[in-house]
Amino acid sequence: MDHRLKQQIDFFLEADRLKKVTRQNYLADGSRKENSAEHSWHLALMCLLFREYAQDRESLDLLRSFKMILIHDLVEIDAGDTYCYDESAATGKEKREQQAADRLFGLLPADQEQEFRALWEEFEEKRTPEALFAAALDRLQPLTLNYITAGKSWQEHAVNLGQVLARNSPIAAGAPALWDFAAVLIEDAVKKGFLKNFGT
Amino acid sequence: MDHRLKQQIDFFLEADRLKKVTRQNYLADGSRKENSAEHSWHLALMCLLFREYAQDRESLDLLRSFKMILIHDLVEIDAGDTYCYDESAATGKEKREQQAADRLFGLLPADQEQEFRALWEEFEEKRTPEALFAAALDRLQPLTLNYITAGKSWQEHAVNLGQVLARNSPIAAGAPALWDFAAVLIEDAVKKGFLKNFGT
Repeated sequence: MDHRLKQQIDFFLEADRLKKVTRQNYLADGSRKENSAEHSWHLALMCLLFREYAQDRESLDLLRSFKMILIHDLVEIDAGDTYCYDESAATGKEKREQQAADRLFGLLPADQEQEFRALWEEFEEKRTPEALFAAALDRLQPLTLNYITAGKSWQEHAVNLGQVLARNSPIAAGAPALWDFAAVLIEDAVKKGFLKNFGT
Repeated sequence: MDHRLKQQIDFFLEADRLKKVTRQNYLADGSRKENSAEHSWHLALMCLLFREYAQDRESLDLLRSFKMILIHDLVEIDAGDTYCYDESAATGKEKREQQAADRLFGLLPADQEQEFRALWEEFEEKRTPEALFAAALDRLQPLTLNYITAGKSWQEHAVNLGQVLARNSPIAAGAPALWDFAAVLIEDAVKKGFLKNFGT
């Protein structure tokens, strides 16, 4: 087999392992936790569904948001899913993920290694409109699933309102109208006891 | 909440159920069967990874292939995943899937219902370059996973070479260079006993 194609097939098979990376949030029916491959698909679908709410929707390069979403979690294959409300787990996260990116994207032919790495870094830096929109969806999806499962995952980890507000602020930057929706969910989650109030 | 946004959120939550639709092929490590949401993500990643092999790569609208891939299996939420080598299950499949499309896409605002339905129909008809490329990936992905798991799913269903060749012919139409790769896998699968020879 051609060397270039062999590298691409190896990467494709290695990527399969993202289906075994378990996240902390549950599916909408509460039956089990979600994995990072399913999560990535759900975000990509949201990208199509909610694009009218992107901050820079007129000039948004939707294809680039899609590409970032598809690869944004691949580093978790080596680095694991770091739970966003676990401060101790966050120690060393950046280094772990950089090493994972070196190894995983290093499986690709050089031109694609460069392309995928640049997309991943753009997503991580959250500066371009495409990255900000992708990041907004990456917050809104688990927030909505947490709400719909009566805060199951928040309660397991004793998460409070202050943490959820800080974590979800990128929604306001990338998709302001979706932040209005998110704020209503969060308020209602506190009212219904799905989520603890500030530091209580 | 705004009625349009409510419809979109309802659709987003309904789509979550695709994570619970189980397919017949296994993950690359053979540990469990794949679900249709993971499968859809993996295809979208392949679309990015293998786009140079598309039959009409110069003029291909990659964004449209992405969109088709993201929604191509949503009808399985109601209609289930019909195993491609099960002829009795194929009876009524089209009607089941049309009814599923009516209900699911009918959750969306009218303009998006029309857009999503048209993308799904374009994928099903396999006539445009974008649909042919998406269909090629939709065949190559499980073929490769079946090969890498030593034909586990083929053996469970006593699938033979003739069935696999017929099923995978869209790869040749959508991505000829990937068909060359697929043909080598299939030949080797027979040689290694992962797959039965014609009608044996």
